[in-house]
Amino acid sequence: MFDNAPWAGLVASAIAIVLILVLAIVIRNLAHRLITRMVNRAATGGSLTSRFRKSAVPEGIDALLHERRKQRAETMGSVLKHIASIVIIGTGILTVLERLTIPIAPLLTSVGILGVAIGFGAQELVKDFIAGMFMLLEDQYGVGDVIDAGAAVGTVEAVTLRVTRLRDVDGRVWYVRNGTITRIGNESQGWSRAFMDVPVAYDADIVGVRVLLEHVAEEIWADPELRESKIVEQPHVYGVEQLSDSSLVFRITAKTLPSAQAEVSRDLRLRVKTALDSAGIPMVASA
Amino acid sequence: MFDNAPWAGLVASAIAIVLILVLAIVIRNLAHRLITRMVNRAATGGSLTSRFRKSAVPEGIDALLHERRKQRAETMGSVLKHIASIVIIGTGILTVLERLTIPIAPLLTSVGILGVAIGFGAQELVKDFIAGMFMLLEDQYGVGDVIDAGAAVGTVEAVTLRVTRLRDVDGRVWYVRNGTITRIGNESQGWSRAFMDVPVAYDADIVGVRVLLEHVAEEIWADPELRESKIVEQPHVYGVEQLSDSSLVFRITAKTLPSAQAEVSRDLRLRVKTALDSAGIPMVASA
Amino acid sequence: MFDNAPWAGLVASAIAIVLILVLAIVIRNLAHRLITRMVNRAATGGSLTSRFRKSAVPEGIDALLHERRKQRAETMGSVLKHIASIVIIGTGILTVLERLTIPIAPLLTSVGILGVAIGFGAQELVKDFIAGMFMLLEDQYGVGDVIDAGAAVGTVEAVTLRVTRLRDVDGRVWYVRNGTITRIGNESQGWSRAFMDVPVAYDADIVGVRVLLEHVAEEIWADPELRESKIVEQPHVYGVEQLSDSSLVFRITAKTLPSAQAEVSRDLRLRVKTALDSAGIPMVASA
Amino acid sequence: MFDNAPWAGLVASAIAIVLILVLAIVIRNLAHRLITRMVNRAATGGSLTSRFRKSAVPEGIDALLHERRKQRAETMGSVLKHIASIVIIGTGILTVLERLTIPIAPLLTSVGILGVAIGFGAQELVKDFIAGMFMLLEDQYGVGDVIDAGAAVGTVEAVTLRVTRLRDVDGRVWYVRNGTITRIGNESQGWSRAFMDVPVAYDADIVGVRVLLEHVAEEIWADPELRESKIVEQPHVYGVEQLSDSSLVFRITAKTLPSAQAEVSRDLRLRVKTALDSAGIPMVASA
Amino acid sequence: MFDNAPWAGLVASAIAIVLILVLAIVIRNLAHRLITRMVNRAATGGSLTSRFRKSAVPEGIDALLHERRKQRAETMGSVLKHIASIVIIGTGILTVLERLTIPIAPLLTSVGILGVAIGFGAQELVKDFIAGMFMLLEDQYGVGDVIDAGAAVGTVEAVTLRVTRLRDVDGRVWYVRNGTITRIGNESQGWSRAFMDVPVAYDADIVGVRVLLEHVAEEIWADPELRESKIVEQPHVYGVEQLSDSSLVFRITAKTLPSAQAEVSRDLRLRVKTALDSAGIPMVASA
Amino acid sequence: MFDNAPWAGLVASAIAIVLILVLAIVIRNLAHRLITRMVNRAATGGSLTSRFRKSAVPEGIDALLHERRKQRAETMGSVLKHIASIVIIGTGILTVLERLTIPIAPLLTSVGILGVAIGFGAQELVKDFIAGMFMLLEDQYGVGDVIDAGAAVGTVEAVTLRVTRLRDVDGRVWYVRNGTITRIGNESQGWSRAFMDVPVAYDADIVGVRVLLEHVAEEIWADPELRESKIVEQPHVYGVEQLSDSSLVFRITAKTLPSAQAEVSRDLRLRVKTALDSAGIPMVASA
Amino acid sequence: MFDNAPWAGLVASAIAIVLILVLAIVIRNLAHRLITRMVNRAATGGSLTSRFRKSAVPEGIDALLHERRKQRAETMGSVLKHIASIVIIGTGILTVLERLTIPIAPLLTSVGILGVAIGFGAQELVKDFIAGMFMLLEDQYGVGDVIDAGAAVGTVEAVTLRVTRLRDVDGRVWYVRNGTITRIGNESQGWSRAFMDVPVAYDADIVGVRVLLEHVAEEIWADPELRESKIVEQPHVYGVEQLSDSSLVFRITAKTLPSAQAEVSRDLRLRVKTALDSAGIPMVASA
Repeated sequence: MFDNAPWAGLVASAIAIVLILVLAIVIRNLAHRLITRMVNRAATGGSLTSRFRKSAVPEGIDALLHERRKQRAETMGSVLKHIASIVIIGTGILTVLERLTIPIAPLLTSVGILGVAIGFGAQELVKDFIAGMFMLLEDQYGVGDVIDAGAAVGTVEAVTLRVTRLRDVDGRVWYVRNGTITRIGNESQGWSRAFMDVPVAYDADIVGVRVLLEHVAEEIWADPELRESKIVEQPHVYGVEQLSDSSLVFRITAKTLPSAQAEVSRDLRLRVKTALDSAGIPMVASA
Repeated sequence: MFDNAPWAGLVASAIAIVLILVLAIVIRNLAHRLITRMVNRAATGGSLTSRFRKSAVPEGIDALLHERRKQRAETMGSVLKHIASIVIIGTGILTVLERLTIPIAPLLTSVGILGVAIGFGAQELVKDFIAGMFMLLEDQYGVGDVIDAGAAVGTVEAVTLRVTRLRDVDGRVWYVRNGTITRIGNESQGWSRAFMDVPVAYDADIVGVRVLLEHVAEEIWADPELRESKIVEQPHVYGVEQLSDSSLVFRITAKTLPSAQAEVSRDLRLRVKTALDSAGIPMVASA
Repeated sequence: MFDNAPWAGLVASAIAIVLILVLAIVIRNLAHRLITRMVNRAATGGSLTSRFRKSAVPEGIDALLHERRKQRAETMGSVLKHIASIVIIGTGILTVLERLTIPIAPLLTSVGILGVAIGFGAQELVKDFIAGMFMLLEDQYGVGDVIDAGAAVGTVEAVTLRVTRLRDVDGRVWYVRNGTITRIGNESQGWSRAFMDVPVAYDADIVGVRVLLEHVAEEIWADPELRESKIVEQPHVYGVEQLSDSSLVFRITAKTLPSAQAEVSRDLRLRVKTALDSAGIPMVASA
Repeated sequence: MFDNAPWAGLVASAIAIVLILVLAIVIRNLAHRLITRMVNRAATGGSLTSRFRKSAVPEGIDALLHERRKQRAETMGSVLKHIASIVIIGTGILTVLERLTIPIAPLLTSVGILGVAIGFGAQELVKDFIAGMFMLLEDQYGVGDVIDAGAAVGTVEAVTLRVTRLRDVDGRVWYVRNGTITRIGNESQGWSRAFMDVPVAYDADIVGVRVLLEHVAEEIWADPELRESKIVEQPHVYGVEQLSDSSLVFRITAKTLPSAQAEVSRDLRLRVKTALDSAGIPMVASA
Repeated sequence: MFDNAPWAGLVASAIAIVLILVLAIVIRNLAHRLITRMVNRAATGGSLTSRFRKSAVPEGIDALLHERRKQRAETMGSVLKHIASIVIIGTGILTVLERLTIPIAPLLTSVGILGVAIGFGAQELVKDFIAGMFMLLEDQYGVGDVIDAGAAVGTVEAVTLRVTRLRDVDGRVWYVRNGTITRIGNESQGWSRAFMDVPVAYDADIVGVRVLLEHVAEEIWADPELRESKIVEQPHVYGVEQLSDSSLVFRITAKTLPSAQAEVSRDLRLRVKTALDSAGIPMVASA
Repeated sequence: MFDNAPWAGLVASAIAIVLILVLAIVIRNLAHRLITRMVNRAATGGSLTSRFRKSAVPEGIDALLHERRKQRAETMGSVLKHIASIVIIGTGILTVLERLTIPIAPLLTSVGILGVAIGFGAQELVKDFIAGMFMLLEDQYGVGDVIDAGAAVGTVEAVTLRVTRLRDVDGRVWYVRNGTITRIGNESQGWSRAFMDVPVAYDADIVGVRVLLEHVAEEIWADPELRESKIVEQPHVYGVEQLSDSSLVFRITAKTLPSAQAEVSRDLRLRVKTALDSAGIPMVASA
Repeated sequence: MFDNAPWAGLVASAIAIVLILVLAIVIRNLAHRLITRMVNRAATGGSLTSRFRKSAVPEGIDALLHERRKQRAETMGSVLKHIASIVIIGTGILTVLERLTIPIAPLLTSVGILGVAIGFGAQELVKDFIAGMFMLLEDQYGVGDVIDAGAAVGTVEAVTLRVTRLRDVDGRVWYVRNGTITRIGNESQGWSRAFMDVPVAYDADIVGVRVLLEHVAEEIWADPELRESKIVEQPHVYGVEQLSDSSLVFRITAKTLPSAQAEVSRDLRLRVKTALDSAGIPMVASA
């Protein structure tokens, strides 16, 4: 630092430092571009997981999906760019310090001790970010989907790399750390299914009840309103699902559009009850 | 330390030491300013999570929010400044010691052994601080919010980086370490929802009951007092939510302001019971 | 970097660098080929686990299995090739930098600190990938199988190295991280079994009931439709499985094809009930 | 150690050693003073958590609180001083050994291996101490408070940095390690709340019962004895908290002084029962 | 690498490299032979755990056991040989590189960073292999045994070092990672025991019932079919196992061959019921 | 080792080695004395936790406590002395080896690899010892105390640094590892409390029952036998602890000597029942 | 390795290598002897835990215990000797390689990377061995004892350092890893206790029933058969253990020899029932 370096040495040092800094900026820019390209490719379908989306996406909503992909790419890219900048600039500074023969060991010691101390505690944070990154990459859910995140169930209001924000049915807002989610159940992909179990008396006419329920199923499928915006297949009637000394249980199911199973279930209950009433067959307590 | 250094060397050392110390102070001040600016930007909306607040905040309370933001910025900045000071001053001292050719290995050894021993045990502490930092940054809750922190449910009385202090409904004060909170449920953001399930007899008049309940819903929405300060939408009546051999269950829900769901629920119960009574329809035990 | 090296040294350096890079590319290509061969052998039956598949695979579907094996080999190979490329190219770059006498310590320091910080948090990710790799290698399940993954039960829709995507019976899509799966139950390998417990009154004629049930078993086995596409063995009637003050419980079981146990169970219930009815023996509540 | 050092070297070594030891003692004393000052400031309100105490502390007990603060400061300072002494004296000894050119590597090796072995096992111990330190610093509870520490509920009998000693209601003494406490519920800060749920028959006169209960609330608030030493607000009567086919549940609550909720609850039960009896309204089993 | 080494040096290097490679191959072969011998000794009874098998193995099935031992030895040896080869070949390559004065630091750096990252995540894998190795070594179970592995209960279909494959009673195939099994219950070693609890009325004749049950026990032991292939001891009748206001419970147990307890239990139930019926003593609901 | 050192060097080495060994023995003895003194001081009341014992110890049993303290001091000292000896002797041997210029790197490598492998696995062991050390130091329990250790409840039969041996009420002996105990409940320190809840009919005379129970309380306190050796305060009668449609629950409690609560409870039950019987007030089922 | 060393150097090297190997063998033999002596002393009562056995061991079975001790010593010594051999031989080989100036860094690198990878995964294994070592040392249980190991309850069939083999009451064989056992309950040490709770009607004659039960207790104690081989103290009758509106519960307990409590309980039930019957006092359902 204070050695009697001749002018030549000083000039060489100055040139070296300028070169190092220029190089650092160039590499940083290259890294940012590379990240942008990678993230875009990952988000728009060139990734391993691109086949996930094909089946789950109804047609005609390409624009909406395109927008969602772009947002995901930005969220992911933003953090990766920060990390790249920190690494490259940090390396540049350390190289300059070394070129100037300034001792960097004390600095590394201080930062190292602190770094290890914090590193252990920050594991959870890194886990959250990695989990969030992959959730976005795999497009497991988006704003507006109804998901079961284990700790909470509700409608997604926001997704960041660290937390997912849900609002449950009581209006409570839940912040769930992404790293604590081991499995996600998404109720808004592709289709849902409405169920109804119909317990009748042990000595009921098995064939008659089945015919009655199949009739309800056809009636539902014939209803233009339901068919258009709620169900996607004719409801299906299963035979004796359960058998006890007091009841026979029949089951009727209907494949519906993602968010329509609750409404279809209510409709199903109403129609089945009406049909049973008019046939004089009461429901009984199952098992 | 006791080598026969000529005067020139001593003077050079003295100058170097003074320079190092001056540099350390300058860098420390710069770091503090940088932290202040970063924290302010994060707290006032330039952060990743700023969009979180938009939807959850009713209008006209900007001043209050501004104050809350300022406090959050101070809490976060305070710890970061302490950490920066310790790192910079520690580096400065080590550099001076090295410049004086005093052996620092023994010191590093002692501190290192102790540091590792404490480091492992302090993981939890660091986790608490990191979790607290992000909770503040994302503004997940503030003083006065009613939250479900898993370990305890109650009104937030204080938020620090390490613990959150709640008071539950029995008046018990709870100290919950931030790092042990994996999900937060906040009941005071945006809106809440009041529920009531109405079980009537299996052979009740489905349509009649539904009309009756819808009438109650309209009556509530028409009540100026409720509409002004408690509910935000006309209550909604769902059809047959549940069906058993003994009862039909209807459901009625009302979207309310954040803290009003308990009161609206009581009102709902009173009105529904009165309406059923006057129509001569008793509630029954649901399945 | 800026030393006055004579031309000879510069030329030697340039040749060395070119050689290093050529070598790196050659080694990378060799590694990729090696991986392709290893993965293919593992996937097509040369592995430790090849005996697993033999018993579980019905005949005549070789082509389908061949396709599935090829896909698995590609999925596995893709990640291994990425890892090999990163290691080999990274080594090449570091060797070139060293040859150029550019100091790489600062770079390693920056990357190392970051690497350790991320390394701890990425454990879960690596666990997921390793678990996924072995699940594929051992062919534990494939698209279309019905599995119990602990966190969720349903039909497999997609398998990647990190997550398995299921759809449960309600139409909910589940993303389960492979590393969190400690045991897999696959309902679609080889055969399943349909059960029915038949409780009759405590004072029923034990021998008579048994004969009646055996008759039902023979009838089922004689049914050409069932025999052809659903069951694989004549149903078996066990004696008194349970005995209480109010009932005797008989059990009847039938070995079926993988996905047919639900349908066979319904058929079994229908036939047993009909047989009991015609013999005037009512089922009772089992203890 | 046995080199032929001239007298000059020996004298220089002797002086250096004396200087090192003097320096170590001086630094140790400075560190102790610094710790004393820091701990006192933290304990008497200059800390981050000082605002916690303000609201929770009734007036007029400053002396008692002052004493408690002093004790906390001593407990915390004691351990910190021990740690500082060990580090400084250890460094001093190692420096002396190095100055004497005695090889310290073997010593460090032995101590290091043992240190790592013990270090892992001692994590829990360090966690307990850190947790205890912060509990004291934040004044979460003190001797005499009734707390819920998860593992045990009772009156605090002693607080040390490692364990908290409670005595539960059966007279059992509990030793709970501070590090295992993830949340503390303190029933002795500020106020408590007494509850009573009053279920009456489904067809009871809603308005009449409410008026009756409000009358009891006023009566309680008017009672000088209760008002002086037990309750802090007029009891509050809520409307229909719960509604079933057999009962209507009213709720009455009273905010009390920290330790008075049990007594106020008993009083409440007595008065409500008497009032209901005199009005001829029996309590019923709530749903 | 490009230094002006005279021919002598080059030749010496070449000889050294050849020697290193030959040595590596020789050592590898020696290691493989050593492993084969060790594993065979361990598997055929020279190990610590050999006494485990003695009691659990019925006579006359030596050939079968010999085959099973051989297979276990192969499974275990295969992995150990892979590990030995990798270590020895890796060491050889590194030694050659060093001999050639090629810098291996960059390579070690790249591999090391990756190695640590993967190492943490691969813990579970290593645990699985170690657990599998010891399970095989101790012969805890083999193909065909019925085991309770905690996560699943069923018949073992395959055992590899990483997973155990079971098939449960419903025909579901379970893959259980060996490392997640903390305890194994094997129902197919040595003998099993059939149980039956016989509750009779509180005022029944204790001595009479006991005599009746002992008679059943003798009858069972006298049955040649049962004695030959199912039970190994005369059934034992215990006195009053349980006593309540409504019933006296007697217990009868029979030691059976490993897989025969279910059948013996059914036989026991039939015979006890018949005996009680003929004596006019009804079973009652036990407390 | 085989260098041509002149006699002078050999003699110097020999002297150095003797000196090192003498020094090691001297330091070891000093360390043992220091440990003895420290442990004695800690065990006899000079420690942080000494105030714990004051309140919990009845008077007049100083000798017994003195003996217990001495034993604790010996148990603790024994392990610490072993550790000190191992460290000091190990350091001595390594120093001698180094002085002899014998290469110790291979030894350290072998021991180090083994040490790390064992170190991780031995964490639990170290935890047990540290926990045992502090339990002894804090005198949480001793032989003869009745404790609740979570995993088992019973009378302490032996305390070592690694395990605590209990015998439960069925005579089963439990070995509980000290490190797995997160909280200890000691029933034998200071006092215990006997409880009795007295449910009477909803329409009972509240005041009359209370007077009756207070009379029983006085009677118990007046009984010289109980007062002398079992209870330490007059029993206390609380008012209406619980109120339902069918019962009013009163509570009576008595503070007793540590092991007397079971006997006092039986006495309490007998006396209360007799008193209620003579007053014609039956107990009812509490809600 | 290929340097032009004169014959002198070669001879010196050869001598050194022979010396190192001889030394290694000598040290290994010394270590084995030391281990044998230590383990014998630990197993035969010179250890910390020797006092554990004194109270738990009935007299006259010294020979059996001596045998058991010897076996334990062998089991423990065997593993320790293996570890010592590996360390000493490994050190010897490394020292010879270094003496020959063969570079050992590549070998250490390969082994080190593998070692760390395996080390993490082998933690569980080491835990099992350490736990097994201490269980043997403390003689917590032996072959033939009935123990509760948490994961399984049964009779110990074999104890090795890694697993404990039990057989439960159904004849199932359990392999429990020693490291997963946090507490052991041993039912075969010293004594057991038989219990019987006797609920009689609320209005029964308390004194009369107690006299009756005490009479049964005396009768049992007077029975020579029981006294000789089953019980060790006169059974004890406690007063009113429980009191409800429908029953008074008395308790009678008897201290028995380790394995006799089940038989004594049956005898107790028979005698108490007979006595109650002859006195016309029926047992009732306890609360």
